[in-house]
Amino acid sequence: MGGARRLLVLLPLAALLLLATAAGATAGVTSGYRRKPEATADMPLDADVFRLPHGYNAPQQVHITLGDQTGTAMTVSWVTASEPGSNTVAYGRSPKKMEMSAQGTQTRYDYYNYTSGFIHHCTLTGLKHGVKYWYAMGFGHTVRTFSFTTPPKPGPDVPFKFGLIGDLGQTFDSNSTLSHYDANGGSAVLFVGDLSYADAYPLHDNNRWDSWARFVERSVAYQPWLWTAGNHELDYAPEIGEATPFKPFTHRYPTPFRASGSTEPLWYSVKIASAHVVVLSSYSAYGQYTPQWTWLDAELRRVDRKVTPWLVVLMHSPWYNSNGYHYMEGESMRVQFERWLVDAKVDLVLAGHVHSYERSHRFSNVAYDIINGKATPVRNLDAPMYINIGDGGNIEGIANNFTKPQPRYSAFREASFGHATLEIKNRTHAYYEWHRNHDGAKVVADSVWLINRYWMPTHDDSN
Amino acid sequence: MGGARRLLVLLPLAALLLLATAAGATAGVTSGYRRKPEATADMPLDADVFRLPHGYNAPQQVHITLGDQTGTAMTVSWVTASEPGSNTVAYGRSPKKMEMSAQGTQTRYDYYNYTSGFIHHCTLTGLKHGVKYWYAMGFGHTVRTFSFTTPPKPGPDVPFKFGLIGDLGQTFDSNSTLSHYDANGGSAVLFVGDLSYADAYPLHDNNRWDSWARFVERSVAYQPWLWTAGNHELDYAPEIGEATPFKPFTHRYPTPFRASGSTEPLWYSVKIASAHVVVLSSYSAYGQYTPQWTWLDAELRRVDRKVTPWLVVLMHSPWYNSNGYHYMEGESMRVQFERWLVDAKVDLVLAGHVHSYERSHRFSNVAYDIINGKATPVRNLDAPMYINIGDGGNIEGIANNFTKPQPRYSAFREASFGHATLEIKNRTHAYYEWHRNHDGAKVVADSVWLINRYWMPTHDDSN
Ligand SMILES: [Fe+2]
Ligand SMILES: [Fe+2]
Repeated sequence: MGGARRLLVLLPLAALLLLATAAGATAGVTSGYRRKPEATADMPLDADVFRLPHGYNAPQQVHITLGDQTGTAMTVSWVTASEPGSNTVAYGRSPKKMEMSAQGTQTRYDYYNYTSGFIHHCTLTGLKHGVKYWYAMGFGHTVRTFSFTTPPKPGPDVPFKFGLIGDLGQTFDSNSTLSHYDANGGSAVLFVGDLSYADAYPLHDNNRWDSWARFVERSVAYQPWLWTAGNHELDYAPEIGEATPFKPFTHRYPTPFRASGSTEPLWYSVKIASAHVVVLSSYSAYGQYTPQWTWLDAELRRVDRKVTPWLVVLMHSPWYNSNGYHYMEGESMRVQFERWLVDAKVDLVLAGHVHSYERSHRFSNVAYDIINGKATPVRNLDAPMYINIGDGGNIEGIANNFTKPQPRYSAFREASFGHATLEIKNRTHAYYEWHRNHDGAKVVADSVWLINRYWMPTHDDSN
Repeated sequence: MGGARRLLVLLPLAALLLLATAAGATAGVTSGYRRKPEATADMPLDADVFRLPHGYNAPQQVHITLGDQTGTAMTVSWVTASEPGSNTVAYGRSPKKMEMSAQGTQTRYDYYNYTSGFIHHCTLTGLKHGVKYWYAMGFGHTVRTFSFTTPPKPGPDVPFKFGLIGDLGQTFDSNSTLSHYDANGGSAVLFVGDLSYADAYPLHDNNRWDSWARFVERSVAYQPWLWTAGNHELDYAPEIGEATPFKPFTHRYPTPFRASGSTEPLWYSVKIASAHVVVLSSYSAYGQYTPQWTWLDAELRRVDRKVTPWLVVLMHSPWYNSNGYHYMEGESMRVQFERWLVDAKVDLVLAGHVHSYERSHRFSNVAYDIINGKATPVRNLDAPMYINIGDGGNIEGIANNFTKPQPRYSAFREASFGHATLEIKNRTHAYYEWHRNHDGAKVVADSVWLINRYWMPTHDDSN
């Protein structure tokens, strides 16, 4: 201490400023990892991962998501192509005894010259927490059977492992990401938007929405994925008469929005184990008084950190991103909502959109008033950690254009494909790992122990 | 010059900075005008201004707006209460010879325990510019006849006088505002949002939407008003099952959005005389890739200042407002769009929402990058002049809580009710007047000659 003080008097002003900066955060790391250059291409439609199930009018594209806020209901969705077929799902605790059943609904939609198959949604209710269920559908034609385990009951010290995936697409890289995630064994996926990239095709070829759902079935038929809307879900194409945003997405991917008091499927919340997960929409209105704004305001007051200590927020477009791609695109939403998230001591904000990986220190930028000029991110232990995980491996390729120098808020960044896992251990600790999955290698390329902002707010976990 | 230079060398740094600040803009004025204190109250439903027209099923709430982008079509709307009645409008150049006719459509809506009357919309087409037309509707029951004059053909030097009104409501003050505007004689109104304040009543009593439309009929049946959506148009009330934003507003007030390539009624543009008027929605999505964002991007490229030199943008929530009420509520939209408006050299941005009057110098705040801290408004002759005219006189009362000191961007501000007029003279000059209308007095309390940003961009008109 005495030594430090002596040093200070001797240092000129510029050096002092530098010192202050260094004390605020350890210098960020820009990973030197460089993948082998290769073309990013979607898997061909006849690839094995897109295969149709055998049998007449067999249910395809099976996926599940939470059907209520905590997982005592589960919504099963699937598509039949030849004829409407049955909306019934049978379920039970053994594949031999699926004694319960639920009746779903079905819908279809047109998109320019495409007409969807028969899209079925059926919510299974009355489930117990932490129990394995088997379920089957396709009655009358071809029956297929799957299983899932419901999440444990929410509580402050309930371990749970999430997968974190974004911007997945359906390339060979996407396939690696999914396989590596399967191998890492999470129990539910927090998906931060940009699913199929069907809009990369002429007329937004919606057959690529179908193929994507067949591709991911191997995971999402067996564990719930929670959906966030990305820009590739907009499918807004007025030039071909398609002017209803999110039409394919909302027809195909239900969310349990009503259970959390939301009035639109694009923003909602769930409570899984020790986590309260809030999903926001970067591409809906978020100005003051709008439905999303109104809902989030009320929702943050409903969070009970004594029951669900971990507060995690999902959105597609990141607020803190130091890649040249999509730089500052999330700015207007940050301006609207950042203060709320800091005041709520959010533990973690997950975003996608930028096709590389980045993790932040705990920084905030909330002192600004339009005339005071205070608009520089500053170290703030109340602030969320921001993780951009838009590196699922889609057809648009890697975003390899980091700004220089690395900003102080940026802790680690690397232009690679991959996925992450978040393993909540108890109310105070969670272990986060980012898995680079380039070139066949599955490597833990970044990791951090998260310390809960509610229970241990003064502990700095992001350095 | 030599004197000034000599002075500079003698001055210390702090004084130099002060000098630079003072050179940027003349000091703003906070008007000392104080109205007599009085209660703000809606006029009672039996007030004369709300009277029903005589005759069985007589058309009521008659209003017109442009039916295409330039006024060769006009959309007439009205309500019948007893039975559907005819959708026909007859029109022509004399009240005795209305030889043309058009067929409209009708709609109704429910809002909680309220069911609307039969709302008719009929677009009269094939009109000539700058011509007086008579029109009539109510055939089969009670016929009522009105007239309007179409706007002149767009061109660079076409004089035109707009009325500028916002946040009108239906109080005694609202009535003064409307009367004073009538007396000032504009030919079309740019309305910046917040029409009826029906949502101030329990269950958003939609009878107050009806009464408001009867109140303003004396102006808007005779000249087009162009509508901007305000927060009081949201009528978002999920607690009573009303979760579709803008339901009453969009059923009642059509806009010519398709004519300007928009896909939603809440953002669009018109070209009137020498003005290109862009209407934006503060309460819809405006993030990158959203429909409004996509439309505005394309729209600003379509503006041809050689044909319509005056570029005017309307929105409800102001970007520059130095009143404590609604302070910085427009910030996230400013962050998204301000740079575009500055690049497009917009002449004037009109907003409402804050129930007082404020006019800005030409300032912008677009140098910001998330890490550079440059987020202070600076003098910029390419920037729009911002005028907040949310002082129509509604039930919520005056916003008399200006921030101190007055920020540099603020040129004039006063906590009074009123309206303004914008009189375009030619491609370079337009005369703007704000009319305070308190306490029976109609006073020009602020005025400025606007100099066109495209044709005389280096001329500073805001000091
Ligand atoms: Fe994206
Ligand atoms: Fe307002």
